[in-house]
Amino acid sequence: MTTSLLDTLGVTVPSTVPTHWYNLAADLPSPCPPALHPGTREPLTPPDLAPLFPMALIMQEVSTERWIEIPEPVREIYALWRPSPLIRARRLERALGTRARIYYKYEGVSPVGSHKPNTAVAQAYYNAAEGITKLTTETGAGQWGASLAMACALLGLTCEVWQVRASYDSKPYRRMQMETYGSICHPSPSDLTNAGRAMLEADPETTGSLGMAISEAVEAAATDPDAHYSLGSVLNHVLLHQSVIGQEALAQLDAIEESADVVFACAGGGSNLGGLSFPFLGRNLRDGATTRVVACEPAACPSLTQGEYRYDFGDVAGLTPLLKMHTLGKDFVPPPIHAGGLRYHGMAPMVSHAVELGLIDAIAVDQETAFAAGIEFARAEGIIPAPESTHAVAGAIAHARAATGPETIVIGLSGNGVLDLPAYHDFV
Amino acid sequence: MTTSLLDTLGVTVPSTVPTHWYNLAADLPSPCPPALHPGTREPLTPPDLAPLFPMALIMQEVSTERWIEIPEPVREIYALWRPSPLIRARRLERALGTRARIYYKYEGVSPVGSHKPNTAVAQAYYNAAEGITKLTTETGAGQWGASLAMACALLGLTCEVWQVRASYDSKPYRRMQMETYGSICHPSPSDLTNAGRAMLEADPETTGSLGMAISEAVEAAATDPDAHYSLGSVLNHVLLHQSVIGQEALAQLDAIEESADVVFACAGGGSNLGGLSFPFLGRNLRDGATTRVVACEPAACPSLTQGEYRYDFGDVAGLTPLLKMHTLGKDFVPPPIHAGGLRYHGMAPMVSHAVELGLIDAIAVDQETAFAAGIEFARAEGIIPAPESTHAVAGAIAHARAATGPETIVIGLSGNGVLDLPAYHDFV
Repeated sequence: MTTSLLDTLGVTVPSTVPTHWYNLAADLPSPCPPALHPGTREPLTPPDLAPLFPMALIMQEVSTERWIEIPEPVREIYALWRPSPLIRARRLERALGTRARIYYKYEGVSPVGSHKPNTAVAQAYYNAAEGITKLTTETGAGQWGASLAMACALLGLTCEVWQVRASYDSKPYRRMQMETYGSICHPSPSDLTNAGRAMLEADPETTGSLGMAISEAVEAAATDPDAHYSLGSVLNHVLLHQSVIGQEALAQLDAIEESADVVFACAGGGSNLGGLSFPFLGRNLRDGATTRVVACEPAACPSLTQGEYRYDFGDVAGLTPLLKMHTLGKDFVPPPIHAGGLRYHGMAPMVSHAVELGLIDAIAVDQETAFAAGIEFARAEGIIPAPESTHAVAGAIAHARAATGPETIVIGLSGNGVLDLPAYHDFV
Repeated sequence: MTTSLLDTLGVTVPSTVPTHWYNLAADLPSPCPPALHPGTREPLTPPDLAPLFPMALIMQEVSTERWIEIPEPVREIYALWRPSPLIRARRLERALGTRARIYYKYEGVSPVGSHKPNTAVAQAYYNAAEGITKLTTETGAGQWGASLAMACALLGLTCEVWQVRASYDSKPYRRMQMETYGSICHPSPSDLTNAGRAMLEADPETTGSLGMAISEAVEAAATDPDAHYSLGSVLNHVLLHQSVIGQEALAQLDAIEESADVVFACAGGGSNLGGLSFPFLGRNLRDGATTRVVACEPAACPSLTQGEYRYDFGDVAGLTPLLKMHTLGKDFVPPPIHAGGLRYHGMAPMVSHAVELGLIDAIAVDQETAFAAGIEFARAEGIIPAPESTHAVAGAIAHARAATGPETIVIGLSGNGVLDLPAYHDFV
C-alpha cells in the first residue's frame, strides 16, 4: 500500500478499525442537560434505565470519558465493512465545475447498506454479555430493524421488531431482510401488547407511527425478564458507537494530508450526524481546528431549524424519559417523505446541545432538491445515495457550486438507496 | 496498517487495485478452440466483430498475452469498490464445527452489488475511447443491465437495455436502477426492432427470453453507426476483465501467508467463475501450485455437468458466432429458478476448455440446498448472498463439513441478495 497511489485513484482506506469510541461529552465546554424521569421530572439515574438496557450501555449513556474501548468481538464484526471508504468525488467535482475538493465517507458498504449496524452490533454485544437473550425494537422504513436483526443473528440473540404498519405493508423488502436473519417482525400497532391493543381499539384502521411502535417494543421488553429494548438513534450511547465514522474519516484525511473545511451530514434522530461530526468537533475544541459542521435536515421535518429547544418526550405516548432537545412537539406528524429515516419530531440531545453552543450549523433541504442532488451524484459517482443521505449531498453540492477557492468538503453518505429505488423512480 | 491486525479481525484488504488483467490463454497447455463465423463456419477474424465491438476489446478477445494493462481511468473507477474484501468466515466456521479455514471474496461491495461492473466499466471505457456514444445490451433479472447503465453514466455514454419482459414486469427495482443512472430500458420483445416485431407477431403474449433480448440489442447496435453492443459474460474479454477478482484474492491470501486448497465459485455464463479462478489456475500451471477449482452450477441448468461439449450458438435465433462450449442446446429453456444470472444454456468457451483439460471440476447444486446454505451464511456472517452466489456457498459448506484437516477454502461471493429478498422470503 502507498497512500499516494490511493490518492491518485481517489479512495483512502487506511486499514485500521478504531480501537476506541470517541465521546464528545469529554470535550464540551458545558455539559449536556440530563434526561429527566417522566414521572418525577428529576434527572434520571442509572437504575431507572436498568429494566430496558444493560448496565454497560447505561454507563456509556452518562459517561464523560473521552475514549471508550471497543470490545474485540465488536471490532471483529465491524471489520466486515469497516473502515468504510473515504472517496474523492472527482467526477462530481468535474460535473459541478467546482474548485472545491469533495470527499464522501460511505457507510453503504455495511451488509444492510447503512450506518445503523455500527450501534446495532455494539448494543447486541453488551446485551448478550449480560445474559440477555432477546432484544425488542421498533422500526419505520426498516433500516434500523434490519440492522438489529443482523446484529442479533451474529451474536446469538433473538430479535423481535415492531414495524410501523404503513411501512410493513408497503415496503416488504426490509421485513424480508429481518426474517432472513431469523428475526420476527410484527406490524404495529399489534394485538400483542396492551399499548397496541389500546391503539387498535381507538382506531382499528390506524397505519401506525414510530411513536406507537416504540411503546409496543418498550412494553414487550419491560414485561419479559430475558429481554431488553434497543434504540437506533437519539441516545448518547448510540451516537458514541457511531463515532467510528468520524474517527476513520479524520484518520483517512490525515493520511492524505487533507483537512476538512466543512462537513455535511443528514440529520433525523442525529446518530449519523453525530457519528461523523463529533470527532471533528472534538478536534476543533481540543486542538483549535476549524472544521464547520452542517446538519442537513428535511424541510418537511425541520426540528433543528424550526423546532423549539426544550424538554420533550421521545415518543407519542409520553412513556420515555424527557429529553432536552430541538423538537417539533411529540404530536408532530411529519408528511410521508421518502427519507423515512429523517421523519422524527425531535433530535439527539447531544446534537441539540452542540447546536445551541454554536458548534453545529443547520440547514433544511426540500425533497425535490435532495433527489435532484441524489441523481446528480449517482450519475457522476456510481453510488445511488439513500434518500436520507441525499440531503447532505444537496447541501454539499450547493456549497461547492458557490465555492470560489480550493475548499475541502466532506459528505456523510450514510447509506445507499438500493431498497429506495421506487422513490427515485417517482422522481425520475 | 499491520497485516496481523487485519488477520485478527478477519478481513484482508491490501490496498492496491491490480494494474493489469490476467489472461489465462497465455498459460493454457493447449489453445481454446476459436469462435466460428455463423455463416462460413470458418474461424472468426477481428474485422468480423468490428460492427459490434471496439477494436481494443476485439484484440483482447483473441489475445494470448499474459498481462494486459488496465487503463488508469478504469482503475480510478474500480477504486470505488476495489480491492474488494477477502473475509475470514470465522463465525461460519464455528457454526459448521469445521477445522477448515473459510474465506470469502466479496464482490457485493460494488455500487450495484455484484461483480458485473468489473467488465462493464472496462467495456464502456474502450467504447468511449473509440468515439462510440451509445451501448446496447440485453439483461435478464437486471444485474448486468444495471451495471452497464452505471458504467455508461460514469463514462458519458448513453445506454439502451432490452430486458426480458417477464423480469421487466415482475422485478422493477433493477429497471429503476438503470433509469436512475439515466439509461433507457425496454421490455423485450419490443416493437423497436425487426427481431422484436417478428417475435411479437409469432406470439403476442410472449414473456421473452434472454436469447430474444440479445437479438434485439445486437440488431439495434448493428443498425446504428454510433452504437456498439456489450455482453456481460461468456466472451474471453469479459473473463479477462473479471480477473481482478482472483488476482486480488491471491494477493490477499499471500499477505496473510495462506494458500487456497480449494476455490468454489458459481457458474452461469462463466464470468464470475473465470474471474476468480483463472489467476489461481495460472499459478497452478506456471508455479506448480495445487489449488482445486470447483464450478458450482444450478441443478436446473447444468451445462457443465450434463451438457455436451460442442459448437453451439450463444443465442436462440442463431445470430451469434458459434462457440465451442458445454451446452444444453440453444433451445434449452431453464426453469424459472431464482438465480436468474445462472440461467444460460451454454458456458464461456474458456471455462469449458479448462474443464475439458481437467483444470476445473464441476458440481450441480439444487435450489433448496443453495438457499439453505445462503441463510446459514447470512445468519453467521451478516451478508445475505445473491441467489447465484449461494451455489458456491453450498458447495463450500458441504466440503467444509466433510473436511477432516485444516484446509483452506475460498468462496467467490459474487454479489449480495438485497434485491432478491422475495426469493429468500419464499424459502424462509
